[in-house]
Parts: sequence; C-alpha cells; structure tokens
Amino acid sequence: MSFHLTILGTGSANPVVTRNATSHFLMVEQEGYLFDCGEATQTQLLRFKLKATRIKYIFITHLHGDHFFGLIGLLSTLNMHHRVDDLYIYGPKGLAEVLTLQMKYSDTRLNFKVHFEETRSEESYLLMENDYVKVTTIPLVHRVPCCGFLIEEKEKPHKILKELLPSHISIEQIKCLKDGQDVLDDNGEVLYSCDYYTIKGPAPDSYAFCTDTAYHPAILPIIKGVKLLYHETTFLHELVERAKETCHSTAYQAGQIAKEAGAKNLLIGHFSSRYKDLTPFIDEAKQVFHNTILGEDGMSIDFRDLV
Amino acid sequence: MSFHLTILGTGSANPVVTRNATSHFLMVEQEGYLFDCGEATQTQLLRFKLKATRIKYIFITHLHGDHFFGLIGLLSTLNMHHRVDDLYIYGPKGLAEVLTLQMKYSDTRLNFKVHFEETRSEESYLLMENDYVKVTTIPLVHRVPCCGFLIEEKEKPHKILKELLPSHISIEQIKCLKDGQDVLDDNGEVLYSCDYYTIKGPAPDSYAFCTDTAYHPAILPIIKGVKLLYHETTFLHELVERAKETCHSTAYQAGQIAKEAGAKNLLIGHFSSRYKDLTPFIDEAKQVFHNTILGEDGMSIDFRDLV
Repeated sequence: MSFHLTILGTGSANPVVTRNATSHFLMVEQEGYLFDCGEATQTQLLRFKLKATRIKYIFITHLHGDHFFGLIGLLSTLNMHHRVDDLYIYGPKGLAEVLTLQMKYSDTRLNFKVHFEETRSEESYLLMENDYVKVTTIPLVHRVPCCGFLIEEKEKPHKILKELLPSHISIEQIKCLKDGQDVLDDNGEVLYSCDYYTIKGPAPDSYAFCTDTAYHPAILPIIKGVKLLYHETTFLHELVERAKETCHSTAYQAGQIAKEAGAKNLLIGHFSSRYKDLTPFIDEAKQVFHNTILGEDGMSIDFRDLV
Repeated sequence: MSFHLTILGTGSANPVVTRNATSHFLMVEQEGYLFDCGEATQTQLLRFKLKATRIKYIFITHLHGDHFFGLIGLLSTLNMHHRVDDLYIYGPKGLAEVLTLQMKYSDTRLNFKVHFEETRSEESYLLMENDYVKVTTIPLVHRVPCCGFLIEEKEKPHKILKELLPSHISIEQIKCLKDGQDVLDDNGEVLYSCDYYTIKGPAPDSYAFCTDTAYHPAILPIIKGVKLLYHETTFLHELVERAKETCHSTAYQAGQIAKEAGAKNLLIGHFSSRYKDLTPFIDEAKQVFHNTILGEDGMSIDFRDLV
C-alpha cells in the first residue's frame, strides 16, 4: 500500500488559465480521496486521465468558491455515469443545503447514496477511519470556518519471516502470527508470534492538507512528523501583511510550519494570480525548509519516492 | 455596429476536455451579452482573452448544470475584480435562490448591483431592450422549464447623404433629418428629410440561442428570418429516438428548423460526449441546410462576415 497524490489545481480565488482552483486527488488501495473541489475539478480529472468513479471520500475545507464550486458538477457527472456506490462527503455547515437546492432545481435525483457529515473547525478530532487510513481534522484560521485534514495510513502489519514457518501451517494461523497472536499448531505446540515476524513494516504514509489558513502554529502538534505537508502559500513574504489581513500564508511561513512540525516534505500551492513566475516561492520556502516541492497542476507524487 | 460572437463551450452534460459546457459571449457596441454559463465559463473567457468585465447582461436558458454551474464562480470573480457596474441576469425560477444561498455561506457580498428577472417559458415575450437591441424569449421543450433567446439589433438609422446637405446646418438638424423629421433651416426654408437620406441602412443583425430543446417547430414564427440561429444538436439522426426521449435534437432536425425558419445561417453545438469526430454533424445538417457552421470552443463569428 502506498499513497499516490495528484494535484488538480494550484490556483487561488482569482482564476488563471494555467492554475485551476484547489483540488487534490489521493489514491490509497484503489480508493480515491478528494480534498477540496474547486470549479472545473471534474475537467482536471479528465485532463489528467484519473478515474472520477474511484472517488469514495470527499473532504471540503471551507465554503469559499475556489474550494467547492466544482462539487455539484462532479456529483452530477458521477450520477450520469450511473454510479451506484455510496459516496462519503465531509464538509462545513451549509454545504449539504447548497447541494440539495441545486439538485432540486436541476431536477437531479442521485442514483447513489451520499453520506454527508458536517465538520467542526473548533477542535481537532477523528473524522473517519476505515481498514487502511484514519482522517483527523486540523482547525485552521480563515475568514470563514475552515478545517484541514490529516490522513494517516494505519500501522502497517508486521512482516512474517516465511522461511522460519513450520510446514502445514494454515493461512489463518499465519494471519494470527502476523497480528501478534500466538497460536497452537496441530501437534499441540505453541508457536510464538515474536519468533516469526520482523519488528515492524515500513513507516506508515501520512498527508496533511492545510488550506486556506493564516500562519497558525497551533496546528503543529496535530501534523507532527507528517510525511507530506501541503500548506497553502498564497503570497510571498514581502506581502506578509496582506497575508495576515486576508488570513492566508506566505511561502516563508509555510516553510516555518513544516520545519517546526518536523514534516518530512512540504508541498506548496494556492498561489495568488498576481504571480506569474513561481520560482521565488520555492526559493523562499527552501530558505527555511529544504524538502519543499513547488505544486503544479497535474503533478503526481508517489509517497514511496519521498524521503 | 455589428454583433460579434465567441463560442465558449460546445459540450453537453457529460464533460469532455476539448468541449466545455455551454456558454456564448456576444459583444454589441462594447457591451457583453452572455448566453448560459456552464462550469468553467470564466476560465474559457480568460483562455480566449475576452474581458469578463464587459459583461452587462446574462441570460440563463434553464437550470441543468451544464448551463449554469459556472455562474456563481463568474459573479465571485467579477466581485473580486471590484466591479461596480450594474449587472442584469435573466433566468428561470430558482436561479436567484441558488446564487443567494451560495453567497450566504461563502460570506460573499457583491460590490455591484444585480438586477434579476425571472423568465417564463410558456410563451414568447419581449424580455428587455436598450438603445441597441431587444431580446425576446423563445419557449423551448426540455425536461425542465427552458427558454431560448432572440436578440435583435434595433432598426439601423437611415444614412444621411452628406454631400446634399446645405452648409451651416446644425448637428441637431442633421439628427432630425436622420430620424425622418423635416426641419426648418435658418433661412426659413423647409428641408424635407426624404431628400437627404438613403432609404435604409444595412439589415439589422439578429441571433437566436436555442438550447436545450427537442425538435419544436412552434419556434419557427419567432425566429423567422434570423441572421444566425444557434440550435443544439446533441445527437446524430440515427439516435433520433434517444433525442426525443431526452428532449434534445439531432443535426438533421436543427437543419430542418433553420430551413423552415428561413434563417440565413445555422450554428450547431451541444454535442454529446459519445462523439469524438464531429464531421458527421456538419454533413448531416448540411443535407437540409447548406449555411451551417460547426461550433468549436473559441470560435469567433463576426456577423458582418455572414451571408
């Protein structure tokens, strides 16, 4: 299992042809997790040849248009493609009402079930979990209620040293050993799990999605040691006052957060339309945090390739 | 004065990377008229280097997503660009409610005034007029209430034959002659307007925007003799039954409507995503109506170039 991320949009509120509004598509075990869904996200999925049908979970940080105006279009298209699988949407108060009203007037009846869960942005809490991952909220500071998301792979199971296993052991017994349970074999002898498995598998993947937000060190304990931190960088630090006024961050500040959180890697995006050349962003962030990746629409990141 | 049209999207409900959702941008006397506003219309305006700030009038035919999901994004962007000029929106019941709810939750307060007028689709009526054009509704047949729009340039004023005018005639007197009024000159002599103006200026431009609709000959008297008819062609005629079921039209039917209406030119679009090669569409429509134009995203049409 590995996380595989595709960036669908690196723009901010004011659209630019080369930078679509925010959306990140994460694949884990053949299931898609979509983080934010700005206008034309569905076109970006098509453009980068990603299967929208794989999306099972959608997380919306806040209700500014560049983060959710594409959701109703995506849902309509999934419906036209005869989706039947349940869809899970997590987003702030108001999102369900907006979607419902648009469906009412466009006479859209979904063929699939949507499980909608309203998020709270006052405190961090476990939002969902399944067999592979758990998702925790990250309260952010923005002009409207906003929460980021930390998605963590569950502890990888221990690896079994097959060459040490006795013959005639069943698959069920191997599973127990892998889970750390001792088993009784057919001869009545106890097989101790610790004799057959390695200490630990590879470190679990984790991804924190932090947008939109002012510089907000209170998130540090939540994202501590994260493998990849996405942190918005709407401005360069020369506009730090503008960033503060509008509740956004600078590239320098994102670097600071990554460094202080002990993140392994930092990904930056949500660039203001005023910037054409983005080189100063990566330069500025790297002043503080070396392992920084400059986001680009269509960029694909396999977490196995990260340090 | 001449009409200048740019096609922003030729796709239908199911998105295709090369064919955006429906929107047509018409410029008349430096003022923009936008017909429908599917998702990512604002990006198309940027892509084709059109000034969204010029848009003064927006007409929405019906509330299927591929015709209006881009409107809230466009309004938000106009607001961010500090628009102050009034905007006029004409659309069906429900549109204002949807926009208002989205603005409420995204904490958007428009800096400019929006005049919203609800359209009715049961009968044809004069919807608006200004100094240059008048717009009449065209009741269409679709799965939700839907009306097209006919925009007609007002009768062009007579041309004055300047070489025949006496000297020392005032601008005000020339205007009267142009409007067909006789005037008294400074010597007390009557100047008869008919002596100084040509019979008529060039034929006024007109554009009919008919989408989405089943084949519906009842529109013929409304669009009679129109200079350019845009008529949707979601399907080829081999799928005429599917067209009927879904309240759409075939290329052959659009050709029939153009022919029977005595239109000068026909523009086709709103192609189903199932078709990659669109050549059969133009071939099919031309079987019935020769002056057919195959719509393409970004195509620009100057009405002076039309027959």
